[in-house]
Amino acid sequence: MAETEVAQVRFGIVGCANIARKVARAINLASNSILHAIASRSIDKAKRFASDNGLDPRVKIYGSYDQLLDDPSVDAVYMPLPTSLHVHWAVMAAQKGKHVLIEKPTALDVGELDTILEACQSNGLQFMDGSMWLHHPRTVKMKEMLFDSKLLGDVNYIYSTSTTSASPEFFENDIRVKGNLDSLGALGDLGWYCLGAVLWAKNYQLPTVVTALPDVTTNSDGVIVSFSASIQYKEPSSSGATTNAIIYCSFLADTSMDLTITGSKGSLNLNDFIIPQRESSASFEFTLGAKLVDLHIGWNVKPERVVVNCDELPQEGLMVEEFTRIVAGIRTTPGVLPDPKWPEISRKTQMLVDAVKKSVDLGCKPVYF
Amino acid sequence: MAETEVAQVRFGIVGCANIARKVARAINLASNSILHAIASRSIDKAKRFASDNGLDPRVKIYGSYDQLLDDPSVDAVYMPLPTSLHVHWAVMAAQKGKHVLIEKPTALDVGELDTILEACQSNGLQFMDGSMWLHHPRTVKMKEMLFDSKLLGDVNYIYSTSTTSASPEFFENDIRVKGNLDSLGALGDLGWYCLGAVLWAKNYQLPTVVTALPDVTTNSDGVIVSFSASIQYKEPSSSGATTNAIIYCSFLADTSMDLTITGSKGSLNLNDFIIPQRESSASFEFTLGAKLVDLHIGWNVKPERVVVNCDELPQEGLMVEEFTRIVAGIRTTPGVLPDPKWPEISRKTQMLVDAVKKSVDLGCKPVYF
Repeated sequence: MAETEVAQVRFGIVGCANIARKVARAINLASNSILHAIASRSIDKAKRFASDNGLDPRVKIYGSYDQLLDDPSVDAVYMPLPTSLHVHWAVMAAQKGKHVLIEKPTALDVGELDTILEACQSNGLQFMDGSMWLHHPRTVKMKEMLFDSKLLGDVNYIYSTSTTSASPEFFENDIRVKGNLDSLGALGDLGWYCLGAVLWAKNYQLPTVVTALPDVTTNSDGVIVSFSASIQYKEPSSSGATTNAIIYCSFLADTSMDLTITGSKGSLNLNDFIIPQRESSASFEFTLGAKLVDLHIGWNVKPERVVVNCDELPQEGLMVEEFTRIVAGIRTTPGVLPDPKWPEISRKTQMLVDAVKKSVDLGCKPVYF
Repeated sequence: MAETEVAQVRFGIVGCANIARKVARAINLASNSILHAIASRSIDKAKRFASDNGLDPRVKIYGSYDQLLDDPSVDAVYMPLPTSLHVHWAVMAAQKGKHVLIEKPTALDVGELDTILEACQSNGLQFMDGSMWLHHPRTVKMKEMLFDSKLLGDVNYIYSTSTTSASPEFFENDIRVKGNLDSLGALGDLGWYCLGAVLWAKNYQLPTVVTALPDVTTNSDGVIVSFSASIQYKEPSSSGATTNAIIYCSFLADTSMDLTITGSKGSLNLNDFIIPQRESSASFEFTLGAKLVDLHIGWNVKPERVVVNCDELPQEGLMVEEFTRIVAGIRTTPGVLPDPKWPEISRKTQMLVDAVKKSVDLGCKPVYF
């Protein structure tokens, strides 16, 4: 094969979930990938997905996941299946030599995830979960501020929300509230982002203890539909600071995606960290050295707004591009191995999901790492 | 006395704390009040306060609180004393017929507060605590949105912070971290605002249960310097909604004063609810009916910013004006009684402070109402 052919990563989408529409678009927008095939358990559903989304007629349409995984032209899969099906199909994909980009939550627990990661690793394949916001240039900019320039000082406090006011239809039908399909409910679907944000803000240090708060709400299937959690880092950083984090995730409240990170020297704040309000540019606010002025009748500083353009590719396009950049490297350059950063991020996030789940199951008892 | 003389309420300030500088200014700015006297336990400190703050030379200066309370020209006192001294001096003031404007926290517990309230009530005197933000026109505007137009729907979630990065000197010397002066620490000083904001957002309904979170930090005196708490309203509103609130208060984190209220139809958000960044105008953001657009690549709406001018009087001036309006009414119009609204607000806030304290003392066990 010529190098240009090899460099273009051919994707198969396993499962025609709603989110697949967005990622199909991203695969086509990204420079080094192409959508090669889609599969649903029903050929009719797959065909409808193709026509509804105006896919290129050359995209292959399969009526079973196995058929897609047997297609030797598929280099990588994007897998937006119900969480309970991840371990089976992701392992199968890895065994057939496909790199794996998988929707979050990655698995029902870290044991399942380890089975997937082991299958990927032993076959020399890249693994990445679908946390799109990690790839946004705004996230990169905030990371510089937090870790390169250390402008905010030590991180003392993190607050993050992911809430959405789900419809009665959602509660009736959506896989994310069905015990047999996505038993992690709001914890897996929404908590993944907030727990991931806490880890991100702590540069992927694991916490000391995780405690679910007493406001946990479950549905008749026992699936979590709303919860809060406290995440504590009790081991002081080099400067003696410890960190507390609080997250709030709910299918029962109006849309929010707040992230506040408060450090010893300043704080940053945004209200759309998961999906920016606008695709082409996003912003965050930060405040440095805020104090009250004399007489305490105002502040010495106002928050400053940082606008970050994202006009070449949306964050999911950047995610696909990062994934395919690694995959193309592995495929074209002998000796290049998968990037361990992405599975490590997924694994730590899954560990925190597991800890919250355990705390909920124990009646909001603390769970130590 | 002519009515104009009676209508102007003559204030005595009992205790020359730092916050008294701000309220002395407010008493002078407000249209219906005048600063008549100040008292400190030391005449030198009182004199220094008068000269440092450029007080009118006619303001009487007393070297004891008793002397000020014995001055028959004083109609009302403003009392920024350490919390442990409130019950003694506020009761004394009431017994001498002075209306009482007192700094928060109002008392060490609701039992003490009831003693003060009983003394005020039996003497026909107005009581109010120094929660200035309740008097800001921005707060009035947000209240209209929450309760008059019900624009946000039922309140599902409230999040509030009050944090400040205190200096080593503060931890060494400030009364707010001394067990024998202000044993409520950050709970009384900062928690008062956040618990008050929760009550305000729920139109002063009391919650079902309050639980301190496991991140409580105390100093060597056993005084709380940082804490979080969960406040739950389990009784559904008319539409079936319950409410969860989370507050975070700390002397150990960078300045923040966040308030987010999320309802079934929208949310509002501000980052300076206690002391607005600018004195002459303040703002908040709200978002109504936020949903993700097709493909989930952005939001259907952007937050709208509401700017509220506050150019006639700062919030503490408005507080003094509201207090003196009631006091003047009582004094000039036979049959007019104190407004029960303000002591009720104080009492409910103190009840929540007590509940958090009890939960902390019980090792973060839930405390039911």
